[in-house]
Amino acid sequence: MGGWAIAVHGGAGVDPNLPNERQEEAKQLLTRCLNLGISALRSSLSAIDVVELVVRELESDPLFNSGRGSALTEKGTVEMEASIMDGPGRRCGAVSGITTVKNPVSLARLVVEMVDNDFFITEDNIGMLKLAKEANSILFDYRIPTSGLESCAAVVEKPIQMNGLPISVYAPETVGCVVVDSQGRCAAATSTGGLMNKMVGRIGDSPLIGAGTYACDLCGVSCTGEGEAIIRGTLARDVAALMEYKELSLQEAVDYVIKRRLDDGKAGLIAVSSKGEVAYGFNSVGMFRGCATEDGFMEVGIWE
Amino acid sequence: MGGWAIAVHGGAGVDPNLPNERQEEAKQLLTRCLNLGISALRSSLSAIDVVELVVRELESDPLFNSGRGSALTEKGTVEMEASIMDGPGRRCGAVSGITTVKNPVSLARLVVEMVDNDFFITEDNIGMLKLAKEANSILFDYRIPTSGLESCAAVVEKPIQMNGLPISVYAPETVGCVVVDSQGRCAAATSTGGLMNKMVGRIGDSPLIGAGTYACDLCGVSCTGEGEAIIRGTLARDVAALMEYKELSLQEAVDYVIKRRLDDGKAGLIAVSSKGEVAYGFNSVGMFRGCATEDGFMEVGIWE
Repeated sequence: MGGWAIAVHGGAGVDPNLPNERQEEAKQLLTRCLNLGISALRSSLSAIDVVELVVRELESDPLFNSGRGSALTEKGTVEMEASIMDGPGRRCGAVSGITTVKNPVSLARLVVEMVDNDFFITEDNIGMLKLAKEANSILFDYRIPTSGLESCAAVVEKPIQMNGLPISVYAPETVGCVVVDSQGRCAAATSTGGLMNKMVGRIGDSPLIGAGTYACDLCGVSCTGEGEAIIRGTLARDVAALMEYKELSLQEAVDYVIKRRLDDGKAGLIAVSSKGEVAYGFNSVGMFRGCATEDGFMEVGIWE
Repeated sequence: MGGWAIAVHGGAGVDPNLPNERQEEAKQLLTRCLNLGISALRSSLSAIDVVELVVRELESDPLFNSGRGSALTEKGTVEMEASIMDGPGRRCGAVSGITTVKNPVSLARLVVEMVDNDFFITEDNIGMLKLAKEANSILFDYRIPTSGLESCAAVVEKPIQMNGLPISVYAPETVGCVVVDSQGRCAAATSTGGLMNKMVGRIGDSPLIGAGTYACDLCGVSCTGEGEAIIRGTLARDVAALMEYKELSLQEAVDYVIKRRLDDGKAGLIAVSSKGEVAYGFNSVGMFRGCATEDGFMEVGIWE
């Protein structure tokens, strides 16, 4: 191996009469971008991560023709395009006609990572879908309701098995994360495949701001469980609202929504406050979760 | 400030009879994700960066119900959803019905960063568009061709000015970056707003793999200049092809395409090889560029 190398450009159509001041500005931006790339390479980021990082920086500065400061169309609007390519496997992604994405190169990067829908499908889940279809119902966590969504809280008495194990072994759950950083900024994210055997196109609580996910100046919240109950309870937003309007503490707000905002639905949530607190709550049998704080506290648990 | 805090979850629908082995697997994944988040927080990443990073890790592992291993729809396909929210400003993004994006939370993150098209439009570019419209032509770098694309290499003799300065001061250029990391992996990215006063919907060389951007096991290449000439010359791909099929060195390949593959078009490119070399070339008056290698070489330049 010959070590790393990096090059950046800001276009080839340079006017021989370009004033010195503008030349200096361009050189300063190119130097800043080179140094950013060098730091990233020294931190062992891969080549594709580094080119994305550097081009984002170039897009964000209005000096060159990309991102902010892009050339205008005949209609006076901006339509950007970008591409990115990784040598290993010649993997590539490209986008055109982009009008609102702040960093088009990152959208191109997501195109690189695109996979066939089959990639997401595991053997376990094929078996689970078969079970759900045989029961002519959706499958909500480890329970197959006897009919449709209305009764999805009804637990089947006789444990259902697959490959000689409880089906819960094969019933994966929604994920989420909440963080407050040392500047007191809170953030939350939630991601899910939704319900097993769900109707194509069904939208749950996870992509609904206020329901499955919420963050503000006071706290960050991510929920998991029965979407209908979480949506009706605007569960994530209510944790923040209780802190804001009733001046509850983080843990009090979490306890309140779990106890009073879920009706009969089963759900849980994790939350952080801008003060550096962490809290969780659930009315289900258990919730896969983990928490940590800067003072060294760390806990991973499943049950009460 | 009370220091940072983090919490992760993997769902609330836990079966009380879940076998111990699967409980241990879940705890290990949650612990790994917590530690990843803790490291990121110690490196001063912002809260929203950390929740995205951690949820990506959870999506990529098939254990929980997100990304790979997601629950199946009634049709046996996967339709994922995700959301992310940043406390400061309550900025948020969400996506649903996602079928091929490997990490839906990163797509939600790009939605957070979405801005009005006006964000990209600068005063300078409004002035430039006016000039181009008065000339009834597109504006290619600092030159306004006398008519349409066919003659876009024709330079207007009389220097055009805006606010008493050459228009080149206001004519921003395409950006790009190529990198080879210390493992010899190459990557390339290019980003642009295209031509000033271009037809709405016009697609240039930047999003075309092989034309504006290319990377493979041998090299990474990003081009800039007249799109039509770069597309006709498959300029980025030809650097790699000359190395692969004619066994030219990186610099020889760059020199070859600039001299022989551009016809009358004006363009330039930057390139790296998997051996850690860096090279550039252009047949325009200048090209904004910068290069650096692991052994301490660094150069930023505009002209020959």
